[in-house]
Amino acid sequence: MIDIYLLGCGGSMPVPNRSLTSLLVSVNGSKLLIDCGEGTQVSMKILGSGFKAIDAICFTHYHADHVAGLPGLLLTIANSGRVDPLTLIGPTGLKNVVNGMTVIAPMLPYELNLVEVQQEFYEFRLNHMIIHTINCDHTLPCLGYSIEIKRMNKFNKEKAESNKIPTKFWSILQRGNRVQFNSEIFTPEMVLGDERKGIKICYITDTRPIDSIVNFIKESDLFICEGMYGDEKNIEKAIKNKHMTFKEAAILAKLSRVQELWLTHFSPALNDPEMYLEQTRSIFYNTVIGKDRIYKNINYKNL
Amino acid sequence: MIDIYLLGCGGSMPVPNRSLTSLLVSVNGSKLLIDCGEGTQVSMKILGSGFKAIDAICFTHYHADHVAGLPGLLLTIANSGRVDPLTLIGPTGLKNVVNGMTVIAPMLPYELNLVEVQQEFYEFRLNHMIIHTINCDHTLPCLGYSIEIKRMNKFNKEKAESNKIPTKFWSILQRGNRVQFNSEIFTPEMVLGDERKGIKICYITDTRPIDSIVNFIKESDLFICEGMYGDEKNIEKAIKNKHMTFKEAAILAKLSRVQELWLTHFSPALNDPEMYLEQTRSIFYNTVIGKDRIYKNINYKNL
Repeated sequence: MIDIYLLGCGGSMPVPNRSLTSLLVSVNGSKLLIDCGEGTQVSMKILGSGFKAIDAICFTHYHADHVAGLPGLLLTIANSGRVDPLTLIGPTGLKNVVNGMTVIAPMLPYELNLVEVQQEFYEFRLNHMIIHTINCDHTLPCLGYSIEIKRMNKFNKEKAESNKIPTKFWSILQRGNRVQFNSEIFTPEMVLGDERKGIKICYITDTRPIDSIVNFIKESDLFICEGMYGDEKNIEKAIKNKHMTFKEAAILAKLSRVQELWLTHFSPALNDPEMYLEQTRSIFYNTVIGKDRIYKNINYKNL
Repeated sequence: MIDIYLLGCGGSMPVPNRSLTSLLVSVNGSKLLIDCGEGTQVSMKILGSGFKAIDAICFTHYHADHVAGLPGLLLTIANSGRVDPLTLIGPTGLKNVVNGMTVIAPMLPYELNLVEVQQEFYEFRLNHMIIHTINCDHTLPCLGYSIEIKRMNKFNKEKAESNKIPTKFWSILQRGNRVQFNSEIFTPEMVLGDERKGIKICYITDTRPIDSIVNFIKESDLFICEGMYGDEKNIEKAIKNKHMTFKEAAILAKLSRVQELWLTHFSPALNDPEMYLEQTRSIFYNTVIGKDRIYKNINYKNL
């Protein structure tokens, strides 16, 4: 249903075995990339995820560790044979950044459709994905992202029967389609019952843990969050540089009742993030220390 | 004396275990980087070569596989505490490329000194290194580089004695200094005899094997050359894309009587360059298939 690949888990500078920040989300073949640090295309190559069918590239912000892989990736996408336009989405400044970076990727065989997010909460749809943004609190404009895949309401047999819907239309209506039959119009509402929870993934980096994030990420199935510092002794540094400690990310996860937390965007000085796993789990147990190319599949069946 | 590190041996696109093009040359602590593809700073980090003391970054040309690592590297150099100006050298277009790429590396704590090479043969000096450029034959303006470290002439004891040089000045004069003693001036020529061969390293990528390269790389101790294609069946592609086959690189090495050839800048489609080593050695025996971070030290003693 939905496949999530953490392409790179490094912050600031790449270090051996830790590419810079990038996340790939794939839903029924639609691919969304968030951030594109140095090393992104190498991780994609290793995973064999293909380059041609990326539907959009979103940016949290324009620090180099989130953007520097862009020109190389755009050229690799070009080499894959893509001719369809590619959408790039990010906070104010996107046009300036893309114009600058593409000085070494001129004459791409596809158009770039640039969307600068100006409003506080922005929503866009990408095939099955409904994507929202939130304004984060970093040293420059920065967006957090949520990706939701809605699920149709339960099928209500009694309702279908009482509405006298011919059984041959049940599954069509259940999938959200309208049916015109003779002079009658049947609508999905005529067969659908209770709501069912969809899937929600959130990606929050780089930011302080501001209150608005708690509601934004509420009840996510997977919350991918920066953990620039493992040791709470670095809290002053986290405040100054507008980042988070593992503990702060875990508190967000707990308050928001998410299912699982992946920590990412580690400081290059943080040699062994696993050292801080136990104390982080004491706040939010279902914490995973990110590694390049860790993967999760979320399906309705395993919700 | 001189340390050469091939930081990345990939062409076009990075593939697993093959970073994009970059070479680091270090002479008595002076560091020269040529090209700066994606992955350059990772290789430097693995080697522990340090970032602060890079004296200059040279570019062969501005295709992304030679330049995309620049903004990340500039920021990492900034994080290393550098405040001294950094010289960047390359063919026409350097200012445009650097202005574009540094949109994600603004406000560096050191100045960038940009040198666009306009003339056909350009010479500059970097501490002990004498660097020359040559115009290559690629799909856009492209420079080849030679790096020479001259060696003082032999000391000629008979000459020093016949010129009546006090022995206490011999070593000072031998190192190329002038000495004023009482009213007399002693010059290095008064103690120096026959010439001695210095060290010469050449770096040629991306280009067709044009005639002028043969003289430019003549009698190099190490000739680092692109080998985009291993299989001679790709010769039409090499001609069209303005690259070389292994065979063409080996012929250049042979004609120029170089000591050793390192092949680099392999096509991403070339999975196993070693397959073509034997046939390349039949033309020029002392051929090495480049790998990321292969290293060579050249000292006067081993010449």
